[in-house]
Parts: sequence; C-alpha cells; structure tokens
Amino acid sequence: MRALTVKPGTPNSIQLDAVAPPPESDGSVLVRALALGICGTDREIVAGDYGWAPEGQDRLILGHESLGRVEAAPDDCGFAKGDLVAGIVRRPDPVPCPACAAGVWDMCRNGQYTERGIKERNGYGSEYFRVEPDFLLKLDPSLDILGVLMEPTSVVAKAWDHVLRIGDRARAWTPRNALVTGAGPVGLLAAMIGAQRGLEMHVLDRNTEGPKPKLVKALGATFHTSLDGLCPDIVIECTGAPTVILDVMGRTAPDGIVCLAGVSSGGRKLPFDIGDLNRAMVLENRVVFGSVNANRDHYAAAAEALAKADRKWLAGLITRRVPLERWQEALERRDDDIKVVLDFTA
Amino acid sequence: MRALTVKPGTPNSIQLDAVAPPPESDGSVLVRALALGICGTDREIVAGDYGWAPEGQDRLILGHESLGRVEAAPDDCGFAKGDLVAGIVRRPDPVPCPACAAGVWDMCRNGQYTERGIKERNGYGSEYFRVEPDFLLKLDPSLDILGVLMEPTSVVAKAWDHVLRIGDRARAWTPRNALVTGAGPVGLLAAMIGAQRGLEMHVLDRNTEGPKPKLVKALGATFHTSLDGLCPDIVIECTGAPTVILDVMGRTAPDGIVCLAGVSSGGRKLPFDIGDLNRAMVLENRVVFGSVNANRDHYAAAAEALAKADRKWLAGLITRRVPLERWQEALERRDDDIKVVLDFTA
Repeated sequence: MRALTVKPGTPNSIQLDAVAPPPESDGSVLVRALALGICGTDREIVAGDYGWAPEGQDRLILGHESLGRVEAAPDDCGFAKGDLVAGIVRRPDPVPCPACAAGVWDMCRNGQYTERGIKERNGYGSEYFRVEPDFLLKLDPSLDILGVLMEPTSVVAKAWDHVLRIGDRARAWTPRNALVTGAGPVGLLAAMIGAQRGLEMHVLDRNTEGPKPKLVKALGATFHTSLDGLCPDIVIECTGAPTVILDVMGRTAPDGIVCLAGVSSGGRKLPFDIGDLNRAMVLENRVVFGSVNANRDHYAAAAEALAKADRKWLAGLITRRVPLERWQEALERRDDDIKVVLDFTA
Repeated sequence: MRALTVKPGTPNSIQLDAVAPPPESDGSVLVRALALGICGTDREIVAGDYGWAPEGQDRLILGHESLGRVEAAPDDCGFAKGDLVAGIVRRPDPVPCPACAAGVWDMCRNGQYTERGIKERNGYGSEYFRVEPDFLLKLDPSLDILGVLMEPTSVVAKAWDHVLRIGDRARAWTPRNALVTGAGPVGLLAAMIGAQRGLEMHVLDRNTEGPKPKLVKALGATFHTSLDGLCPDIVIECTGAPTVILDVMGRTAPDGIVCLAGVSSGGRKLPFDIGDLNRAMVLENRVVFGSVNANRDHYAAAAEALAKADRKWLAGLITRRVPLERWQEALERRDDDIKVVLDFTA
C-alpha cells in the first residue's frame, strides 16, 4: 500500500512510499483511510525539526489527523465494517506515570508517551491503518469527509474542558464572553465550541481577506483585527505570537482565564512589566494556563461537537482537498488556507 | 474606647483616637479585641497609598487581622461569651455580582465589595468591635494569642484550595513537592499547610539570618537561597518580586501550577522571552494563577490548619508583641520581623 513517510530529523525526506500492510501489532481494527488533515506539526516534521521514527526503524509514516472507514474488526469490539472513525494520536508510556495510568495521557508527566505519526509510532498517512479499539472513536456518519476535523477539535475540546474546570474553582463562575486569537482551524473550532456553549464569542485575526471573517460571522461571533476595547472572561490563544500573548494576558476580566493553545518558538526577548501583570493577576484572581493534546474524553466531546455543528460551516474550514498522489501540494501554504486535507478517495 | 484610625489618602495621618463604641449596625456580636496583626496593606494605608473611609466619614479604623473574645452575643447565633474568634475581612457588594451572591466574595467580579479596615468599613483595630455572626469564626481556644494568625492563614488556605482544585482538572494529578518563595508570615503559613498535606516542602528566602531558616527546618521543609536544581510541582509565590516571579514561572514540572500570592508594584520592564515560556506552558500543561483574599470556607480551613499546628512553631512567627499604646513601634520594620502584633491585653 502507499504511505507518506519521512526520515525524522532529515529535512525534506518525505516521499510517497510503497510499504507493507499495517501489522496486527498496531491494533485489531483495520481501517481504510478516507482523508488526512495536514497541520503545522506535519510541516515541522517534514522540515526535519521534529518527529521520531519507531524504534529500530529509519522512517516514520506521517499523519495524525485521521479519518477512515472500518474495513474489518473483531466481533464485540464496538466497531463494525463501514463505521466512520478517527484514531487517537497519543499512547501512554508502557511504564506509565500516574497521569497516563489514569487515561489522561494528555497530561503525561514523564514525557515517555508515544504519538502516531509524530513520536515513535507510525501515523495514519497510509491507505490502510490499524488501531486498538480503545484508541478509536466513531463519528456521526453524516459528517463524512468533515470527520477529518476530529483531531484539531479534540485539542480545543480539551482546552474548553480545562477552562471550565479551572473556572469552577471559584464555585460561582459565570463567564459571558470569550475571545479566540487566531482564526486558523484550531481557533475557528474553538470559537465553534464556545458558540455551542452559548457564550458571546469574539475572534481576532489580522487577515481580513479570504474566508475567515465570514466563517466567524456565521457562528454569530464578532471578527476583530485589534483587541482594543475587549475585556473577555475567557481567552483561547491560538496564534503563539508573543505580542498577542502579552496583549491578552493583560486584558482579561476579573477571574478571567487565558488558555494558551498555540505553540511558539521562542528566542526573542521583549521588554515586559511582569510586576504589573502579577499585581493584576493576584488582585483579580486571573489564570493563564497551557493546554496540549487530548485524551479519549476530549475526542468523545469533539465527536459530539462536530455532530451538532452546521455541515456547511465545517465544510468551509476545509479549503483544499488534495488527492494523495499530489501530496506535495498539500504541504504548500497558500494565502486562503484554513485546513488542507489529503484525500485518499480521489 | 481607643482605636487606631487613619485618614485614607493622607500620609501618616494615623493616630490612637478616642472613638464611640462600635455601632450595632456593625453586627450583633460584640467582641473585645485581644490582638491585631500588622501587615503590608496596613503600612500602605498608613502611607496614604491605599484605603477608603466609610461613606460620609473622613477617618477609617485600621486593622483587618483580628483576634478577640466574644463579650456579648444574641442567643442561638452560634457564639457565646468567651469564645475566641476572628472576623472576616471582606463583605459582598450590597448589589452583588454572581460571585458575591454565592458567598465567594473573594472572587468578586465588579470590585464593589467592602473590606473591614481597608475599604469603606471600619476595621478591627479598636478595643471593642462588632461583627455579623456570618462573618465571624471560632478558633480552637488553646490557640489563644496565636489565633491572630487567622487572616494570613485564610489567604494561603485559599491559595492551596485553588491550587488543588486547578490540579484536579487533570483528573489524576499527584503532586509530590511544592516550593514557597518568601519566608514572611504568608510564605511560612503556606509552607505549614503544604507540610500538613504531606508534600515535600521547599522554601526560598534570601535572608539566612534570623529565625526563618529554623522555622522552615522545623516544618521538615528545606530552606533555599537559590532556585537552582528545583523543579517543583507547585509554587506558592509570596515575594511579589519580578525576578523571582519570572524564575519560578520558568521552572515548574510538567502539569506544574504556580500560584501568585504576592502583590507587586510594577513600573519596571524586564527583557523576557514570552515565546519560550508559552511553548513550555503549552507543551507541559502548566498553570500560573493569581489568588487574593479568602471566603468563609477558607477561614474555616485556616482555623482547622491552625488548630492542628504546633503551638511553639506558630509562636515563632510572632516575633514582636507591641502594647496598643506603643502602636508606632508595631508599624516599624525590623530585620528579624516575621509577624508583628498589636497586643490589646498588655
């Protein structure tokens, strides 16, 4: 079968390979790929900046934003031929820390987890893949190709879960509005979940051209190019841009919560009045926290959020569908891109 | 009766006044003062930098770290003559926000709360004071004068409550060690609660002279003058010093939680790699949050923590007891001071 593989650490080693069918050791459920979402982590791996091959191997099958249909599954495993499914990315450490042992591998404390398509486990970027039933979830069949948004939705489902659980420390927290910074796929899906929860939503992006402002408006949310005048109860920061991060940390409402969900690269020092921020954070009980990855509960919440989302709106997030054989195009960045998807059915 | 009063906003307006007995509108329980703790907020008010008099009045009775014995109380109000008691500082806004309405006035969202001895309500720095039964708590009688540590203990009881509730968002958080920065009264009481919870405790202070290192050691905790080599699960930051804040934010363990509990003044910009901190916070699910004040549940937790604390250790925190008529000495800062207390019984 065909698979997109890379040699981790070697820039531009990516190729469309002929590889052996997935081994049964990958899991008992055989899935035929429908689509694969491409994200910044994939591009980092292709650039040689990130990623690890499975032990004893040179190359890694790329891809972690999976979508497929069950081709074959053991009896009574919860899955049957034809189910629309997505696989979970992270696996707990074989000798797990307390977090991994409790199924919250997204909070892994020893860094010894593995990740499909990223860290020491082959990914989902092949015509067929196998998954353990515990690491596979069903999607509403009517989602069809839109189910490829499952993995980024799981990431923001976790961000929202943690925002609300942290907010509950106050025992009487009633947030009214939320700001999402960055209208990429993660930001837009974060705004979608906020709108589903009935919050007054605001989305910041510098790009006023292209489909983003319309997608924001279609959620009933307000599009902004500047934070002036905003004082949100919740911020989900998806840009990773230092100036945006500093700006949002300084402007939340009392009891406000900033979730940092965008990975930045560092290496640049900015002058910053930490004493002033500290004083405001203390006197107003404010929180800033980071969130990465997702566990099975968050995937389940993501499947629910996608099931009740407007299909046309979700379709608007997938701005390009690229057939597998033209995979090079999927890795290019284009101006109006939101989510680019490799299409295994074309 | 005698009371320490100030004209808020006017530097050094403090004096020992003859004032009328406390009005019944202050509350149905009459308390005879035993002691009053002095803290940085009192000094800010004395300097004219903070504080508000009650509406329609020029002067404010100072003092919020109260301790007294009930002199008279209505039947069936839960208090009786002779009870050792401390009063709560904050009162909800008369037209409360959702937080105040739910009794979590420490999380007040509109800033319209009042505070005894600080904001628009006379304080506890008088020979007698009155309190509403809902804003008064009993202390273990054997604490005697040590009960004056109630208010600072309530502040760290809240800090710990929020640390652990935020930690619970992970569903499987098992912190092992904690660092407290600053071995003042608040820091030492924070370390005491951490030690009571069975955590491996570390305390940072620059002052190796005086009683602090011994008090830290007596808790079974480790005293540090540098953070080198530390990677704590929890930090309770009590210095408010910008360099310490930046240092602790950069060094917690995965899933680590920093509670900012020290108020700083701001006005000084430091070069800071926010992108680098953001990346670490995201990839390791780290939290930084501010905490101020305390609600009734936290006072109750504080009463419990003090009741089970070693009396000799608590006595070591009160480094000076100054008779009321020599109140000027209580406001001075001396090298070995931890908690200075005005003694109404001397």
